[in-house]
Amino acid sequence: MPIDLRSDTVTQPTEKMRDAMRNAVVGDDVYGEDPTINRLEQLAAEMVGKEAALFVTSGTQGNQVAVLSHTARGDEVILGAKSHIFYYETGGLAAIAGVQPRTIQEVNGQMPVHEIVAAIREDDIHCPQTALICLENTHADSGGLILPLPYMKKVYEVSRNYQIPVHLDGARLFNAAVGLGVDVKEITKYVDSVQFCLSKGLSAPMGSILAGSKKFIDESRKWRKMLGGGLRQAGVVAAAGIVALEEMVDRLKEDHLHARSLAEGLAQIEGIAVNAEGVETNIIMFSVEELGMTSNEFIQQLNKHDVLANPEGPSRVRLVTNRSIKEGDIEKVVQAAKNISDKARVGA
Amino acid sequence: MPIDLRSDTVTQPTEKMRDAMRNAVVGDDVYGEDPTINRLEQLAAEMVGKEAALFVTSGTQGNQVAVLSHTARGDEVILGAKSHIFYYETGGLAAIAGVQPRTIQEVNGQMPVHEIVAAIREDDIHCPQTALICLENTHADSGGLILPLPYMKKVYEVSRNYQIPVHLDGARLFNAAVGLGVDVKEITKYVDSVQFCLSKGLSAPMGSILAGSKKFIDESRKWRKMLGGGLRQAGVVAAAGIVALEEMVDRLKEDHLHARSLAEGLAQIEGIAVNAEGVETNIIMFSVEELGMTSNEFIQQLNKHDVLANPEGPSRVRLVTNRSIKEGDIEKVVQAAKNISDKARVGA
Amino acid sequence: MPIDLRSDTVTQPTEKMRDAMRNAVVGDDVYGEDPTINRLEQLAAEMVGKEAALFVTSGTQGNQVAVLSHTARGDEVILGAKSHIFYYETGGLAAIAGVQPRTIQEVNGQMPVHEIVAAIREDDIHCPQTALICLENTHADSGGLILPLPYMKKVYEVSRNYQIPVHLDGARLFNAAVGLGVDVKEITKYVDSVQFCLSKGLSAPMGSILAGSKKFIDESRKWRKMLGGGLRQAGVVAAAGIVALEEMVDRLKEDHLHARSLAEGLAQIEGIAVNAEGVETNIIMFSVEELGMTSNEFIQQLNKHDVLANPEGPSRVRLVTNRSIKEGDIEKVVQAAKNISDKARVGA
Amino acid sequence: MPIDLRSDTVTQPTEKMRDAMRNAVVGDDVYGEDPTINRLEQLAAEMVGKEAALFVTSGTQGNQVAVLSHTARGDEVILGAKSHIFYYETGGLAAIAGVQPRTIQEVNGQMPVHEIVAAIREDDIHCPQTALICLENTHADSGGLILPLPYMKKVYEVSRNYQIPVHLDGARLFNAAVGLGVDVKEITKYVDSVQFCLSKGLSAPMGSILAGSKKFIDESRKWRKMLGGGLRQAGVVAAAGIVALEEMVDRLKEDHLHARSLAEGLAQIEGIAVNAEGVETNIIMFSVEELGMTSNEFIQQLNKHDVLANPEGPSRVRLVTNRSIKEGDIEKVVQAAKNISDKARVGA
Repeated sequence: MPIDLRSDTVTQPTEKMRDAMRNAVVGDDVYGEDPTINRLEQLAAEMVGKEAALFVTSGTQGNQVAVLSHTARGDEVILGAKSHIFYYETGGLAAIAGVQPRTIQEVNGQMPVHEIVAAIREDDIHCPQTALICLENTHADSGGLILPLPYMKKVYEVSRNYQIPVHLDGARLFNAAVGLGVDVKEITKYVDSVQFCLSKGLSAPMGSILAGSKKFIDESRKWRKMLGGGLRQAGVVAAAGIVALEEMVDRLKEDHLHARSLAEGLAQIEGIAVNAEGVETNIIMFSVEELGMTSNEFIQQLNKHDVLANPEGPSRVRLVTNRSIKEGDIEKVVQAAKNISDKARVGA
Repeated sequence: MPIDLRSDTVTQPTEKMRDAMRNAVVGDDVYGEDPTINRLEQLAAEMVGKEAALFVTSGTQGNQVAVLSHTARGDEVILGAKSHIFYYETGGLAAIAGVQPRTIQEVNGQMPVHEIVAAIREDDIHCPQTALICLENTHADSGGLILPLPYMKKVYEVSRNYQIPVHLDGARLFNAAVGLGVDVKEITKYVDSVQFCLSKGLSAPMGSILAGSKKFIDESRKWRKMLGGGLRQAGVVAAAGIVALEEMVDRLKEDHLHARSLAEGLAQIEGIAVNAEGVETNIIMFSVEELGMTSNEFIQQLNKHDVLANPEGPSRVRLVTNRSIKEGDIEKVVQAAKNISDKARVGA
Repeated sequence: MPIDLRSDTVTQPTEKMRDAMRNAVVGDDVYGEDPTINRLEQLAAEMVGKEAALFVTSGTQGNQVAVLSHTARGDEVILGAKSHIFYYETGGLAAIAGVQPRTIQEVNGQMPVHEIVAAIREDDIHCPQTALICLENTHADSGGLILPLPYMKKVYEVSRNYQIPVHLDGARLFNAAVGLGVDVKEITKYVDSVQFCLSKGLSAPMGSILAGSKKFIDESRKWRKMLGGGLRQAGVVAAAGIVALEEMVDRLKEDHLHARSLAEGLAQIEGIAVNAEGVETNIIMFSVEELGMTSNEFIQQLNKHDVLANPEGPSRVRLVTNRSIKEGDIEKVVQAAKNISDKARVGA
Repeated sequence: MPIDLRSDTVTQPTEKMRDAMRNAVVGDDVYGEDPTINRLEQLAAEMVGKEAALFVTSGTQGNQVAVLSHTARGDEVILGAKSHIFYYETGGLAAIAGVQPRTIQEVNGQMPVHEIVAAIREDDIHCPQTALICLENTHADSGGLILPLPYMKKVYEVSRNYQIPVHLDGARLFNAAVGLGVDVKEITKYVDSVQFCLSKGLSAPMGSILAGSKKFIDESRKWRKMLGGGLRQAGVVAAAGIVALEEMVDRLKEDHLHARSLAEGLAQIEGIAVNAEGVETNIIMFSVEELGMTSNEFIQQLNKHDVLANPEGPSRVRLVTNRSIKEGDIEKVVQAAKNISDKARVGA
């Protein structure tokens, strides 16, 4: 088995999850009769401090449903130029919801607050109406950076002033909470709705949660049906989600420690540019430009050492620590990178 | 436990499915690395005689993805006025795909072929272009009727003449095949794409299959991602789907026998109008109008006898046989109905 | 110049309209500064008894804007299966507004009221919400039939009971009023919004009016901008519209008399099936099936007699009387039809 | 009459245009029978060197139709963050076409070419497909700057390499050609489709032209119909458009000279920051920040001197020269601005 650092989405369900799935008491969730789904949704709502929650099949589905519930056709949504909702959701914002993204370049994962304010549309017949602000925490493209709580608060205040709701793409929400060492509600109290994944670091095989007010979730349930996310005996997967929420949150610390340790190891290697101090959660980005290699070339070399990784643009490599990483793996990866670097610099 | 005849969607997964889910070998399906999903998709494609197949989370998702792949924004789709795609998919046809339904009233579940031909648009600047014909087999609203093979063939010939693809909503496709006593490919050879459910009579907890040409499925994979149907370790549910396809198809006969037997019993009861001869698969529709009751009133009475059912309009009751029905249940339901009838006629 | 009975859209502007256009006092209507547009909109609103009105470039634009203002993405609209909005507006309902048409077959241009009631959706997660009922008066496809006032009233009452707005596609609204001999407000008082054309029988070169509440028109102004209907010195065409409303309404009687007279003439001809009694306004439909000719063949023969007409399906011909028809033309057309009939029956 | 510098959209039609409108030979353009529209479309196509052209009611409609013809639902369009299509077309891109804007900040009206290249999407299931690049020339938000021909050429080369069409929003295309002193075809040869306005500096009361290949215009004709842009005797306005193209192009020089002269005058005034060298066409932007005034306050003062202007953000004022500006007006405006400045600085 290779050391798989491509993403935390590759995590396998735990034995306990598998047992829970096997033994789940289930019913028809379209009738609201699946007790396991109901328990998961209640648990999730409580954890993030919202009135209600909804199981969705993926983070993309949770985000798209949130946009559908918060907006009307023809509106505009403010979000980061590198946010998942804008960048990696196959254009669903426009194609499904009929709303226009208004993108702002993030700095360290944060859209500057004054730019958010400047992007809010005035009432003008030429312009769509600003209907939603979306944040992403942790912010994947910036290397898993955490949005600081004062930043969340400031955006929230802007949103109250302009009466525009805030949705949080919290695919890795618990990484942010664990990274900050706070209860997750300290983050989610600054947003109207939040989506977070049960897969990724929490290791459930599939599924995400969308949470918000009861009214919002009622409406979201209908949009989820339209997207084909209304399931039958969905408790079989919800059972794994419950284990994820009850038992897997704390273990994210481990991923963060691994990531930091990996980054520090890489920082010692000549030709690899990585800011180890900047690794706040479980994502490491580093540049191999100085080695005269493209990210794809570097990754091909890593593969020969049985290490899997993903490129992030032409010269950056992304590593994501996750539950499959065992003791000793970190050292092996660092050693592999060092070998590649040595070879590249000799060859050059 | 009540006798649940509301739908075949209420079926619980089998023990074998639960074991299979527990032990599934899984991977990240967004990377195409889930061997169980891959096996399910290959098996499904072979069974329906298509090049490729795609696991989707629900029948609705499979149908909407098919429409997205077959059409362009602004096109028109010919389908039944009581078809699931038009009637029960939350308006997704227009809201997601931006295409206009052109409905035809079904007779015994069949849109008259000459009306299909008449509904195909000429090339005219005032009109959308006809881009797709959708069939439904078995046809739920007509009481689970099977589309006869010669009918399927005729529609297919029309579709070839006009170069318009045909999509089959086969949520209960295997009920049709079992009912006709033919290999399912005898049905699916007359369509370009087909969606069928692994849940319902086949008893998997969730999931459907969309099958068609390789090109169609490649495109569908992207639309599925947009709707949030791209899953991670989806093999945990696919494992149940494989059991469904390998072991549960033949058992549909049982549901059909139960349905026929139930209908014959009901036909003996005064005040209940049911065409027992017309019960071709696992759905029974009967009218309680002569009893001077609404369908909801009748169902409330059934509930007191521990029998669950759904209304189909103001005076019709729908019963759907399924795997949860045990020996003796049929007789109990008939007896309950008889009691209600007796009471109603005395009271009147 | 041929006798042009293809449509009343072919009417040329009057000399007075041309003068009015030449001399129109105009401004930038996007700034609300075109006095001629403002006068037209005020005049139009008063005539149909609504708070406000909006100039739009065509009937299609007026109808689509109305749908956009009345509905939200994912809703359903009840309208006739042969209505212009459904049939002849290039699928805009779904493509632009993202709403699903729910069609009902018209009988004499009227959707049966009980079918409208039956088509209103219950609150169900599987179903779109019914957001609008559209009527068409006069109803083009049925041969320009007028919706009787009691029918309008009944639909209006249904709409109040279910709190669903009614939009009237009144492309030929004034033909209905003139045909009934009532003030147009007697018709429009039964609808929330109405679109009517300044072109067609009223002879303006282009443009329609959308009227409704002030709030509705404010919102419609924005949707019109989105469709590209926000014009600059639009008073040049509005000037003709004012003449149309002030001077051309009464002349529609003439078109109706011509149509009746033409129908009566045609009714005398062997092999032509026309219901002269059924000609209520300016449209005549007749069948040439008994002559063994298609509508296109018949029309080609008419063309040789310098008469232009349009087919309405494979065996029906449509004639629309309009301002270009002069004294003596009716007789010429009847004579031409008689010649064709004679020839066809001899040939047969 | 105040001196109106709010926009060149306020221009009144010329006497010759009014005569042409009065006397236009017209027909029903939906049947393709309006000789004046046909002549305008042919003339326009020839002028911009394209196979075919289409009259549309506004620049917004022309741009939206172009997007509809060039893209499929779910695609992505690269365009400037301050472009009219993104910023001022009421979100139509997403709401009508279902496509997602991918915005790039313009520098002097130009999206940096390397950023265009970087924004083109790879083939990835997570991402929409890049289907169109939109340019704007002259670029309104940057103060009417002209895109240099070598820039146009470079973007065109990128578009050929990646097989992505280029659409030009040339609302003020002829200002660009006149400003460069080249035939307009020298600009339009670098794009697949172009929209330009007959109103604005060319002074027609309404209407724009969309031009491109025959196939593109055929398809655009249908999308125009959907948006309600299919007109009847549209020749009445096309007649003015012909005058605009035949007689008004050269006069744009005058607007440019006025703008330069006005900018030079303003540049002398203390507290007003304007780059007179940067005025390439008919738009002047200047900042009143140093005067301690907002743009709205400054404009209110201008109004008292009978000068109309529009704000461009909180501290910038926009002036647009146009045909209504007479000899002596420039001096009056400069004098008014000087008075306001003097007063403001004394007051401060």
